[in-house]
Amino acid sequence: MPESLGVQVLHGPNLNLLGTREPEVYGFATLEQIDHELAALGKEHGVEVQCFQSNHEGALIDRIQEARTWADAILINPGGFTHTSVALRDALLAADLPVVEVHLSNVHAREEFRHRSLVSDIAVGVVCGFGPLSYRLGFEALLGQLRD
Amino acid sequence: MPESLGVQVLHGPNLNLLGTREPEVYGFATLEQIDHELAALGKEHGVEVQCFQSNHEGALIDRIQEARTWADAILINPGGFTHTSVALRDALLAADLPVVEVHLSNVHAREEFRHRSLVSDIAVGVVCGFGPLSYRLGFEALLGQLRD
Amino acid sequence: MPESLGVQVLHGPNLNLLGTREPEVYGFATLEQIDHELAALGKEHGVEVQCFQSNHEGALIDRIQEARTWADAILINPGGFTHTSVALRDALLAADLPVVEVHLSNVHAREEFRHRSLVSDIAVGVVCGFGPLSYRLGFEALLGQLRD
Amino acid sequence: MPESLGVQVLHGPNLNLLGTREPEVYGFATLEQIDHELAALGKEHGVEVQCFQSNHEGALIDRIQEARTWADAILINPGGFTHTSVALRDALLAADLPVVEVHLSNVHAREEFRHRSLVSDIAVGVVCGFGPLSYRLGFEALLGQLRD
Amino acid sequence: MPESLGVQVLHGPNLNLLGTREPEVYGFATLEQIDHELAALGKEHGVEVQCFQSNHEGALIDRIQEARTWADAILINPGGFTHTSVALRDALLAADLPVVEVHLSNVHAREEFRHRSLVSDIAVGVVCGFGPLSYRLGFEALLGQLRD
Amino acid sequence: MPESLGVQVLHGPNLNLLGTREPEVYGFATLEQIDHELAALGKEHGVEVQCFQSNHEGALIDRIQEARTWADAILINPGGFTHTSVALRDALLAADLPVVEVHLSNVHAREEFRHRSLVSDIAVGVVCGFGPLSYRLGFEALLGQLRD
Amino acid sequence: MPESLGVQVLHGPNLNLLGTREPEVYGFATLEQIDHELAALGKEHGVEVQCFQSNHEGALIDRIQEARTWADAILINPGGFTHTSVALRDALLAADLPVVEVHLSNVHAREEFRHRSLVSDIAVGVVCGFGPLSYRLGFEALLGQLRD
Amino acid sequence: MPESLGVQVLHGPNLNLLGTREPEVYGFATLEQIDHELAALGKEHGVEVQCFQSNHEGALIDRIQEARTWADAILINPGGFTHTSVALRDALLAADLPVVEVHLSNVHAREEFRHRSLVSDIAVGVVCGFGPLSYRLGFEALLGQLRD
Amino acid sequence: MPESLGVQVLHGPNLNLLGTREPEVYGFATLEQIDHELAALGKEHGVEVQCFQSNHEGALIDRIQEARTWADAILINPGGFTHTSVALRDALLAADLPVVEVHLSNVHAREEFRHRSLVSDIAVGVVCGFGPLSYRLGFEALLGQLRD
Amino acid sequence: MPESLGVQVLHGPNLNLLGTREPEVYGFATLEQIDHELAALGKEHGVEVQCFQSNHEGALIDRIQEARTWADAILINPGGFTHTSVALRDALLAADLPVVEVHLSNVHAREEFRHRSLVSDIAVGVVCGFGPLSYRLGFEALLGQLRD
Amino acid sequence: MPESLGVQVLHGPNLNLLGTREPEVYGFATLEQIDHELAALGKEHGVEVQCFQSNHEGALIDRIQEARTWADAILINPGGFTHTSVALRDALLAADLPVVEVHLSNVHAREEFRHRSLVSDIAVGVVCGFGPLSYRLGFEALLGQLRD
Amino acid sequence: MPESLGVQVLHGPNLNLLGTREPEVYGFATLEQIDHELAALGKEHGVEVQCFQSNHEGALIDRIQEARTWADAILINPGGFTHTSVALRDALLAADLPVVEVHLSNVHAREEFRHRSLVSDIAVGVVCGFGPLSYRLGFEALLGQLRD
Repeated sequence: MPESLGVQVLHGPNLNLLGTREPEVYGFATLEQIDHELAALGKEHGVEVQCFQSNHEGALIDRIQEARTWADAILINPGGFTHTSVALRDALLAADLPVVEVHLSNVHAREEFRHRSLVSDIAVGVVCGFGPLSYRLGFEALLGQLRD
Repeated sequence: MPESLGVQVLHGPNLNLLGTREPEVYGFATLEQIDHELAALGKEHGVEVQCFQSNHEGALIDRIQEARTWADAILINPGGFTHTSVALRDALLAADLPVVEVHLSNVHAREEFRHRSLVSDIAVGVVCGFGPLSYRLGFEALLGQLRD
Repeated sequence: MPESLGVQVLHGPNLNLLGTREPEVYGFATLEQIDHELAALGKEHGVEVQCFQSNHEGALIDRIQEARTWADAILINPGGFTHTSVALRDALLAADLPVVEVHLSNVHAREEFRHRSLVSDIAVGVVCGFGPLSYRLGFEALLGQLRD
Repeated sequence: MPESLGVQVLHGPNLNLLGTREPEVYGFATLEQIDHELAALGKEHGVEVQCFQSNHEGALIDRIQEARTWADAILINPGGFTHTSVALRDALLAADLPVVEVHLSNVHAREEFRHRSLVSDIAVGVVCGFGPLSYRLGFEALLGQLRD
Repeated sequence: MPESLGVQVLHGPNLNLLGTREPEVYGFATLEQIDHELAALGKEHGVEVQCFQSNHEGALIDRIQEARTWADAILINPGGFTHTSVALRDALLAADLPVVEVHLSNVHAREEFRHRSLVSDIAVGVVCGFGPLSYRLGFEALLGQLRD
Repeated sequence: MPESLGVQVLHGPNLNLLGTREPEVYGFATLEQIDHELAALGKEHGVEVQCFQSNHEGALIDRIQEARTWADAILINPGGFTHTSVALRDALLAADLPVVEVHLSNVHAREEFRHRSLVSDIAVGVVCGFGPLSYRLGFEALLGQLRD
Repeated sequence: MPESLGVQVLHGPNLNLLGTREPEVYGFATLEQIDHELAALGKEHGVEVQCFQSNHEGALIDRIQEARTWADAILINPGGFTHTSVALRDALLAADLPVVEVHLSNVHAREEFRHRSLVSDIAVGVVCGFGPLSYRLGFEALLGQLRD
Repeated sequence: MPESLGVQVLHGPNLNLLGTREPEVYGFATLEQIDHELAALGKEHGVEVQCFQSNHEGALIDRIQEARTWADAILINPGGFTHTSVALRDALLAADLPVVEVHLSNVHAREEFRHRSLVSDIAVGVVCGFGPLSYRLGFEALLGQLRD
Repeated sequence: MPESLGVQVLHGPNLNLLGTREPEVYGFATLEQIDHELAALGKEHGVEVQCFQSNHEGALIDRIQEARTWADAILINPGGFTHTSVALRDALLAADLPVVEVHLSNVHAREEFRHRSLVSDIAVGVVCGFGPLSYRLGFEALLGQLRD
Repeated sequence: MPESLGVQVLHGPNLNLLGTREPEVYGFATLEQIDHELAALGKEHGVEVQCFQSNHEGALIDRIQEARTWADAILINPGGFTHTSVALRDALLAADLPVVEVHLSNVHAREEFRHRSLVSDIAVGVVCGFGPLSYRLGFEALLGQLRD
Repeated sequence: MPESLGVQVLHGPNLNLLGTREPEVYGFATLEQIDHELAALGKEHGVEVQCFQSNHEGALIDRIQEARTWADAILINPGGFTHTSVALRDALLAADLPVVEVHLSNVHAREEFRHRSLVSDIAVGVVCGFGPLSYRLGFEALLGQLRD
Repeated sequence: MPESLGVQVLHGPNLNLLGTREPEVYGFATLEQIDHELAALGKEHGVEVQCFQSNHEGALIDRIQEARTWADAILINPGGFTHTSVALRDALLAADLPVVEVHLSNVHAREEFRHRSLVSDIAVGVVCGFGPLSYRLGFEALLGQLRD
């Protein structure tokens, strides 16, 4: 795995609130801390990590399109867009990069409409339910994928 | 009910056209007039009212997140996002404020896909079908809610 | 709006228990008090208000048929019949009067089978979720409707 | 279990025909005999038993509402209302008494629309398929419930 | 066909309004006139005809149960109960008499929920869509049935 | 009603077997006899009656198209095509003539897939379940329709 | 009822944990105690009772097949197999013995997938929701069945 | 057709990648080239053509609203929003201009969720499956529409 | 593109009525005129065009089978067979020629059952909603396809 | 089994192409060869075999009706009509002969709409997936059936 | 076809009862006789045949896994597991051998839940409805398959 | 986290084939190697790891029940039982231990019936799609869970 590998980390809507909202549920880690941890982890493995959060579907799509020019993989928590955005799916398909989907909460234990993901079947795999740890495990999975 | 109460009023996509489009259906009131009336009503009850319309889902979510810092309740007409936006729902859930949902038209008498709302079950209640009056009634309901 | 206007208020099954059952949920207002408030509100606006509650679907239909002879509008909380009574719907259709549907609770946040209403699409509009206040708001909406 | 316990037994539509209709299917026991047996059984256990049959949904609801004032439990065979009456369900919910649901026939072996019960999930339990014996078993279950 | 034949004619909810409501749709014939015509037709064929209308499901069921003691067949327009009343269906099943179902309007050309009838599959046959003529044709069909 | 009125009677697939197949079910009347009776009935009322049976969907459509040039109404038993032929429906729509649909058997009491008719909602009305009598009643209904 | 009657009692997967798991929900009775009570009850009525529990679907099927050689009826709580095992259903069908289905909990008040039983429609009847008492009532029902 | 006619061409999310992504599938034409061809075609017919692409739903809605002030028709390839955006549909409805929907790929031959379009039923017509040619054909259809 | 190219144009049931039926909807163009225009267009591009209409599914299938021997592509408006004929689909699959599907009306804006096409997913693409123009656009698309 | 036994073999639409289309999939056997083999097999067992193929549903129905007069069983590969033709099903039902259904391909491994057969439940049994061999096995099954 | 070919024959739950249960339905052949016939048939064609029946899903899976080491094909009647066992399907997929599925009864003519098979789409083909003969025909099909 | 922690690792049906079957898909790692890696990982963190694979649903349930007596958490790949075994789910519920569900393949990208898991909503979280790595990530997640 060459040093020049790059990973685009994407956080969907409302994830900017992490750590400040219901810490007893989601833990006290903020998105900033998660991004920091992923960057450190990347550094350790010689992988450049870029993180981006937006509540705007279009902004996430723009960023995915840019990722085609520099990144080797995408780690995404599409938040609420997971279940509704065909456009995001199309952007990921067009990017033609390995994608790992992560969720903080266990979506299978929530409302019926959260059981359908428009991303899962085009991702390499999915990690969900482990809070901030989901990100780290997903990142490790991505590294494993890139190493193959 | 202390004077310092605040209500964020949110209008979803296409509601900026109100009054200029099909006035025989929606009446001649513009969104500006509705906002004005709500502000006046708020003043009367010692409630600060902030109004915001956008065709951008992300912009509405941003505003809902801000509302957490100053508002005590949200009055929202999510327009077309009512039926499709899990992200908006998540923002409202995260805001953890009482929400009242209003619609100008009677959504139950329209297309099948308008019968499902992703907001209704997390709102205090719903008012729909009465044109601009829906807003005023929803606002009264919100006041009643805040008074309890 | 002439003084001779009349409104038939109808309460479906089990609403006679209001105020005596789960007051922490539904408030302490009894159906009598609600009827009294609506009558007072009507008087204020020169509208005759007749209230009627029954656990019998047929009795409610009989009353709707009579309303055709004297009332100008119907305010109805169909209770459990909301979701099951085509006959009630037909009576309302035959009455050919503006109808406003109200509910004490937020039906959208309850069992799946309460999400379908056989009345909503033939009503002018719907108010739900605000407890006894739903009635007053629905009444105001009806006045607005009659004024047009 | 104090002697003053009371049980309201309710029979839904068409159950008054019992014993006179298709005796080879439903047995020769009439509703009168069943009521008599339950009363005797109640006496034996110091429980007052009141029985009531009606083809009128409203009359059954009225009776359930009255039961709140004197009875400690309800034994009900809702007949055809089992599958269609939200109003009956609401009355039982409002009564806030333990309910046992019984059926003469095995509803699971009949038409598709008889597989859904609007009562079962709010009952303590269900007994079905054993003819008149269903009532006695249901009554025993209710006694067991009251004894706990 | 012996002279002593009897037919119970039953009209469900809202049919009492016939002739006074939307005559351009349903024609100017009142229910009284229809009953009169059926009685005359019956007399012509030596058949006693008893007509009954009610907005109360229970009252219709009571009447069906009585019909078992004197009538040889039932002609029924269940109105709105067609689509919702399992209890009515059960009463007709228990009566064990040939049933013909009639409708003034063409239920197949109306709302989706009117396409399901709980009576049709236990009736001999169905006539719908021909206004008051539906009754006469249904009656003829019943005579044909009794003659066999 | 002028003498020159004409009715096209159409019988769908397999109806040519009538009378020779399962007479204990469908009676001993042949299609020829039914056609003869309808012709006689037509003559009585000054209506020209043309009858046509085919197992070929296309042949029935051809005939419906021709009917536009001479007939005033169509009486059709589409047989198995009732549930599957959009083309037949389109032909009837294009003919722009009043249509009455008849069935020998009670389709509502048969297989699930026979409960959907592609003709019923564009017909004036439907008669089913009375064997050959269904035709005569349907014809009378058509006459009533033409008289209006 | 001859003394030689025999009843096979079958307990499905996880029921061996009874009494040791969530006693506040399921009571303190162990499966052993239930089996003992049923055996005693059987003795009282001259019925041989054999009890068997297994977490293995195949072992239960084997036992049902053996029951054909000596038992007169089967009392079964299929546990989780209730909703998924066609093979168990087939074994019961092949055994050609009267079957009574019992459940400790009220399956109708639990997850959606527990509402479908592959056993209920081939059983004589069902008892559910009464904890260990369900077994005794089911056993009584079976005795009633055998006595007929 | 006056020279002053105007057409707003809209491209939904990810269409900016055209020509650079999977050229063997979508051809080598870039969006720029398509826009250029449409502008030339427009010039030829005296029609002003404005083209706009965005990955932001809100931006597309804004543009549709502006189109009301100058354009006579809309040619739109809504991309992934086709299947999910009620807000876009509402904007098109509010614009009250003839709309033609085009797709590069044959959406009917792709994933199930691409078979539902929220635009098709409010469009004049649809062209899909012909790559960049779809746009030109759609444009011709629009001209034909404007000429009528 | 060699001169010897051939296109089979196929019109399904009822399309022979074009121009004579509801001209305000479908325009005054007859099928003959459409066929003539397509033939002229073909001549212009050195393509032999053969047109065929039938109300008989089998006749259309026969013609598709023949097309395998001389044609290079098929342009088809399957009319009502679009939604129901697996046999037609199979014939097109067996022909193994590029297919373009056209419709005069916008099928997406009509009855639910017209939303499913058994041809679309095996066609190159679809054009619908533009009246006779749909044919010409579909033909152009086919030429484009053959040129590739 | 008397020598005079007869079997009608029927091939549905597009089966005439067998052997000439996709031989790598369906093998090189033509329909003629299959018919020949079945005839030879029939001769061997003293059974007259008549084979018939048509792309016309009506022609197949006609032939089934004729088969009633001379054949003792029907072997049918209904091709695309399998999934859509109620009329064919009705013809087979009316023929009242044992039917065996065969398919060259494994319909269960193909499109969803091929999983439903309107013939299977009225057939003795089904053989599918073995190419031309399916016919021979189906024929053997039919012989076995006739021998019983 | 070399002599060393081997076929694993598998019988699912309850098939061990064959011949002793409902012989009028399933015939008098026992499973032993069927196994014997298949072994003889195999010998005739130089194929080793191993037969195995179990009521235990796991035992069947174990055997399928073993078959990978010696058999060339699998003939399976999965009985009740047909409709429910993803694990069995997975074992067959992993075995990577040609599979033929057989059933004694015509599953298409039985309960709705028997219409779905988890095996059919991964099998070469299916034979059902011919009693013990289904096995022999399925075996012949397998031989044909191995010969190719 | 005390040294005495224990984790039960469970592998469902067919997972014993890992490494020997389709190594290009699942990798060359055998189940033995995975178990070994997990044990080593456990040792490193002072966690006792017990691994168990079975093709028998009952054996897995037995093991889960035993785990209640010594383990602190369960790591499970239920294989094909994921989608069908309510009994397994019940065992996990009864064990009342934190559960992590893992899958080698991405179940969301496979057959429809693999999209439903009966385990996911009662698990802490899910990891799928990363081959043998899924196990290690799931184990890490479990450690994280135990540490909280």
